[in-house]
Amino acid sequence: MRAVVYQEPYKVAVEDVDDPRIEDPTDVVIKITTAAICGSDLHMYEGRTAAESGIVFGHENMGIVEEVGDAVASVKVGDRVVLPFNVACGFCVNCQLHNKTGFCLTVNEGFAGGAYGYVSMGPYTGGQAEYLRVPFADFNCLSLPEGDDHENDFAMLADIFPTGWHGTELAGLRPGQTIAVFGAGPVGLMAAYSAMIRGASRVFVVDQVRSRLKLGEEIGATAIDFSDGDPVEQIRDQTDGEGTDCGVDAVGYQATADDGEEQPAVVLNQLVQTVRPMGTLGVVGLYVPSDPGGPTDHARNGELLFKMGEFFEKGQKMGTGQADVKSYNRQLRDLIIAGVASPSFVVSKEISLDEAPEAYERFDNREDGYSKVVIKPGS
Amino acid sequence: MRAVVYQEPYKVAVEDVDDPRIEDPTDVVIKITTAAICGSDLHMYEGRTAAESGIVFGHENMGIVEEVGDAVASVKVGDRVVLPFNVACGFCVNCQLHNKTGFCLTVNEGFAGGAYGYVSMGPYTGGQAEYLRVPFADFNCLSLPEGDDHENDFAMLADIFPTGWHGTELAGLRPGQTIAVFGAGPVGLMAAYSAMIRGASRVFVVDQVRSRLKLGEEIGATAIDFSDGDPVEQIRDQTDGEGTDCGVDAVGYQATADDGEEQPAVVLNQLVQTVRPMGTLGVVGLYVPSDPGGPTDHARNGELLFKMGEFFEKGQKMGTGQADVKSYNRQLRDLIIAGVASPSFVVSKEISLDEAPEAYERFDNREDGYSKVVIKPGS
Amino acid sequence: MRAVVYQEPYKVAVEDVDDPRIEDPTDVVIKITTAAICGSDLHMYEGRTAAESGIVFGHENMGIVEEVGDAVASVKVGDRVVLPFNVACGFCVNCQLHNKTGFCLTVNEGFAGGAYGYVSMGPYTGGQAEYLRVPFADFNCLSLPEGDDHENDFAMLADIFPTGWHGTELAGLRPGQTIAVFGAGPVGLMAAYSAMIRGASRVFVVDQVRSRLKLGEEIGATAIDFSDGDPVEQIRDQTDGEGTDCGVDAVGYQATADDGEEQPAVVLNQLVQTVRPMGTLGVVGLYVPSDPGGPTDHARNGELLFKMGEFFEKGQKMGTGQADVKSYNRQLRDLIIAGVASPSFVVSKEISLDEAPEAYERFDNREDGYSKVVIKPGS
Amino acid sequence: MRAVVYQEPYKVAVEDVDDPRIEDPTDVVIKITTAAICGSDLHMYEGRTAAESGIVFGHENMGIVEEVGDAVASVKVGDRVVLPFNVACGFCVNCQLHNKTGFCLTVNEGFAGGAYGYVSMGPYTGGQAEYLRVPFADFNCLSLPEGDDHENDFAMLADIFPTGWHGTELAGLRPGQTIAVFGAGPVGLMAAYSAMIRGASRVFVVDQVRSRLKLGEEIGATAIDFSDGDPVEQIRDQTDGEGTDCGVDAVGYQATADDGEEQPAVVLNQLVQTVRPMGTLGVVGLYVPSDPGGPTDHARNGELLFKMGEFFEKGQKMGTGQADVKSYNRQLRDLIIAGVASPSFVVSKEISLDEAPEAYERFDNREDGYSKVVIKPGS
Repeated sequence: MRAVVYQEPYKVAVEDVDDPRIEDPTDVVIKITTAAICGSDLHMYEGRTAAESGIVFGHENMGIVEEVGDAVASVKVGDRVVLPFNVACGFCVNCQLHNKTGFCLTVNEGFAGGAYGYVSMGPYTGGQAEYLRVPFADFNCLSLPEGDDHENDFAMLADIFPTGWHGTELAGLRPGQTIAVFGAGPVGLMAAYSAMIRGASRVFVVDQVRSRLKLGEEIGATAIDFSDGDPVEQIRDQTDGEGTDCGVDAVGYQATADDGEEQPAVVLNQLVQTVRPMGTLGVVGLYVPSDPGGPTDHARNGELLFKMGEFFEKGQKMGTGQADVKSYNRQLRDLIIAGVASPSFVVSKEISLDEAPEAYERFDNREDGYSKVVIKPGS
Repeated sequence: MRAVVYQEPYKVAVEDVDDPRIEDPTDVVIKITTAAICGSDLHMYEGRTAAESGIVFGHENMGIVEEVGDAVASVKVGDRVVLPFNVACGFCVNCQLHNKTGFCLTVNEGFAGGAYGYVSMGPYTGGQAEYLRVPFADFNCLSLPEGDDHENDFAMLADIFPTGWHGTELAGLRPGQTIAVFGAGPVGLMAAYSAMIRGASRVFVVDQVRSRLKLGEEIGATAIDFSDGDPVEQIRDQTDGEGTDCGVDAVGYQATADDGEEQPAVVLNQLVQTVRPMGTLGVVGLYVPSDPGGPTDHARNGELLFKMGEFFEKGQKMGTGQADVKSYNRQLRDLIIAGVASPSFVVSKEISLDEAPEAYERFDNREDGYSKVVIKPGS
Repeated sequence: MRAVVYQEPYKVAVEDVDDPRIEDPTDVVIKITTAAICGSDLHMYEGRTAAESGIVFGHENMGIVEEVGDAVASVKVGDRVVLPFNVACGFCVNCQLHNKTGFCLTVNEGFAGGAYGYVSMGPYTGGQAEYLRVPFADFNCLSLPEGDDHENDFAMLADIFPTGWHGTELAGLRPGQTIAVFGAGPVGLMAAYSAMIRGASRVFVVDQVRSRLKLGEEIGATAIDFSDGDPVEQIRDQTDGEGTDCGVDAVGYQATADDGEEQPAVVLNQLVQTVRPMGTLGVVGLYVPSDPGGPTDHARNGELLFKMGEFFEKGQKMGTGQADVKSYNRQLRDLIIAGVASPSFVVSKEISLDEAPEAYERFDNREDGYSKVVIKPGS
Repeated sequence: MRAVVYQEPYKVAVEDVDDPRIEDPTDVVIKITTAAICGSDLHMYEGRTAAESGIVFGHENMGIVEEVGDAVASVKVGDRVVLPFNVACGFCVNCQLHNKTGFCLTVNEGFAGGAYGYVSMGPYTGGQAEYLRVPFADFNCLSLPEGDDHENDFAMLADIFPTGWHGTELAGLRPGQTIAVFGAGPVGLMAAYSAMIRGASRVFVVDQVRSRLKLGEEIGATAIDFSDGDPVEQIRDQTDGEGTDCGVDAVGYQATADDGEEQPAVVLNQLVQTVRPMGTLGVVGLYVPSDPGGPTDHARNGELLFKMGEFFEKGQKMGTGQADVKSYNRQLRDLIIAGVASPSFVVSKEISLDEAPEAYERFDNREDGYSKVVIKPGS
């Protein structure tokens, strides 16, 4: 089959690779109908990870079941399904008792958590390809209505809609509360959108990219352009000096100050200052224990200068970590089917598989129209 | 009346001061029967705060109601009561809706939270004295059984028993789980004790002071002496390499490495390493936004080098802040009355008011027998 | 002052009564700007309670502070405030620890819970009058923005908006879930509206009054007319045979079958059948331990034939009871101010005090336009 | 193999039956080391169910893995495991999202929930036999330490310890609270024992069988003998007239009044009266939608005269249903390993397989020493 294959920093190509097949009786193989490109694919694309050439990218996958292993009980050939980016077993203590499928102990030996098409996340080929092998299929497949309605909405269930929602969950958002979302990329917008659906009274989105902030405003959020001045002050001014009830970090360790310089803790610390006493910070932007490209020795070891004193004095809480997609994807699917949610508003472009190399380049250059690209291998 | 009055760094004296009186119709005045000395009193005693001479110390107070204001509805002369160290109003949003009486917006203008006898915590005279004025008495007094049974047990309800319990609550401890408590001073021991009562399967206490670790062992905890080697490794070795389900920081910013040097983030970071993926850290040890005596510029501004990368990768959570005593003190009182809890095991000495200056000095020197001193002004 | 006074069954009059005054230093007196008539006023109006003549009705009250007691700390003359229908002290264990102000142990001796203008709910005169005495004012007053914006929206904060919201809270509604609300009177509509705000994927409202169902549809709910057939079957048909995730009983013990006969448990039992296994029932419709007008001996003693077997087999849960308005009114106020919620859509008519007797009669006759009447004593 | 086989009412026999074998690649077969007899086995034994002759009894099973299907990933031959009485798939919405394995939608077509050796609970042969087939083995097996330590303690993890714990969970028990457990059979005792472990301040157990009450007292509970008078009054007298914070119904629909007559709702209604306002009732005693032997027409249809009026007026909650063993069995296992819990104190007798028929008869006669019998097929 044909697939998007990583070659070297700043280069992917569409190549012929082996067709995936049933390896374990609990597997299925699906024919990909939509696979999205994710901001986190760029970490590998830019060569800032240990990814080696040959890896097939793609962890935001959906499609039609093509083949089914002998031990699969609930999935049939022809079913339309979307897959959480986390690969999970369903029976380890983290999957079962804690429902934290992003920290599965089975699928990626020696580590808590696996994913498709991602360095260090286990032996799972990505879905920016014609076909995909899905392990533990009964557990990992989320069934969708037949046909092709809401295709791009459902594609957002693989990662960014649950991840944005997870941010609001980690932040402990309650209806009627105010929330500040730092970062208005696709995940930040999904967090803001989730907050609106959950009945927030006021949602701020903080970024400096105009087009992102505009999308935020279109879903009803208040845009805060941090190139216009300290976002903490701007939000305080709009909340009677009190700050928000909670906040989401949808930026992570590659945060930059308004001069463009990387300051890994700047968003975290602004959140501490923005959120009121006893409020909670939900962190879904990525932080890593080892970042060879970090700006300081400490940053390279994942140690950041965090405003612990203010955080404690305010009695704040912080929740972090990769989303456990399966905690959210069923209800979010139902919100899409019911017409309450249409997360595909973030999708900026549909392309064929062959157009993927160019799309990666343009996405990496932050070109207009490439903020959220979905690949249609069948087109 | 006579009271323990701060003079200058390393000096308190017992002096005559004005008797407290009803100032607002919601006040009561109590005659102190027991007032404990707290480790946090030493911050002022050592001159590491902005405390000025003349302040009467004491925020762990209990006694008998002597006089009652006109608007007090539920407290009568002669009632035996214990007071949360936090002074709170009961009707601001933090007290009422969030039940976070440690962050009252009414009692200490311009700040969230008030206390008796403490610098910057509002105009409330301390209780290491013969009498104490209690504002918003209906809200702040917890009634106790008549007589003098369990006097020292009940005295622990003012601060350290609820604070230790709060640590286990912030840590999200569930019955059957394992927990690591860093710091085996009175608060750490109360956290460990709380964890036992709540059905933890295994409780580790980490310290390097033998007598503290011994007390920990006596209540059923496993002692980890960090002068014997990395506590993270020691605990991993005793948990099949998995670490604990959660942890409590009962040390705070004056944490020291095993060489005795202050390393403000050492306990926080050891907790990140000790606790398993998805576990929660409960931080009740104090961190401050401004610490003139801190070892580095950043520490002086409350910015600590925190292992954010590992914390995120493990999907951990952290909860912080001063205990909201009123969330816990009724049930803990009932556990004492029922004979389930006897927190006075930490009390090392009873003294008269006149012995307080010497006790402060010996406590500050960490002398044996002075780890938890209670003052009996009537003796 | 002039007030709506109960005379005898089916008769209220506007009479001169004593002006309310500060009785305790924690009181305020407010000048009523809006007081709503509630369906539960009809229980007294119809003579189905122990209410005696002379009682001033009105527990849904808002207005401007006119006079302030000496011990009041946070409320000033001229403040615009809305009062929860529950009168509460703020410091008893139910108010403080459980935040259940509907079960205050202080304000109504020998009973858990008090209210304005209601039989057996304590000595608190109602607000369908020019003025109202508010006890424990710091605790009971919710402050509102100056002026008269959103007047009718804010008036709904005294009872029915929080009560409807409480129904969805008791029902454990999570975003993305489906919910069935039985009863489309003002409280049922508020429950449905709350469910929409909280991100329900599908909301059913069940009634047989066309105008009520129409209002339900206007806010986005699916109307189920039980005169068209078994509502359980109708909802199952629209949910793939699975029923809803949760449900609200906004009807109570005066439920009628479609033949108009009272069947006190009919709604409860239909909810058991409508809600899926493990779902939760939130009951805000009133059930009483003693109902002299009940259709059977058992019903008169508050014992109803409940489908316990099916309830258990499905592993369902049920939460009940009067709303604790203060758990919700701040956030709901903020949703109104933010423009997210406009609960006044249920208000059908504004009247002067003098028009109250006629309005009661028409409301009791279920005449069009009298489903939710608000009195403006100043008009 | 040999197994306990149901013949007809009041008669079981040990017979030769087909050996279980791997039927699906996700199965394992275990060699039973311990299988307990449960009170609910008596429902079938007494002929009060639709159970037909030939059914092999036994849903409280543990043993050693003998054979493993091709698709099993985490269980190996020789592993020592205990099985939840509920058979569950791990991937349906109830198992996965809600963690409610007692309501699995996969294993028992047309019904929510399956079990071993029980009428209507699916095609799963019981474990009062030499061997047992375990479906979805990765999900259903809980691994235990090698050897035979704590054998009877671990055997209690299959059903009654988690079921008792579940009662306290449904009851919303918090540390420091008081709880009343109605029924001091094995499940009631496990509920009381769970409450002690979870830090209850006071635990009441209500029964009229002296030996059961004595066991309750031995674990620290207060015994209430309802043959001595109204248990509601007795408990109120011991709680300052306030009743308990919560309660557990460990009796179910075969409750009897003190005259020995069946009164299906008597325990439920006594709980409503015993528990304070806003408290929660956890119901783990069985109620059924159809009971051919019920004392009235309504009871035969699972409709009971429930004190709904008082329940509502007190704002109580109720949670019900079969325990989802997998929500609790890991932590409870860890409490056993840590030495905190030893639930085998309820085991009254160990027998061989051949002694089972006699044991059933004596257990059904409530003979001394037969309150909790465990079968050792290997002895």
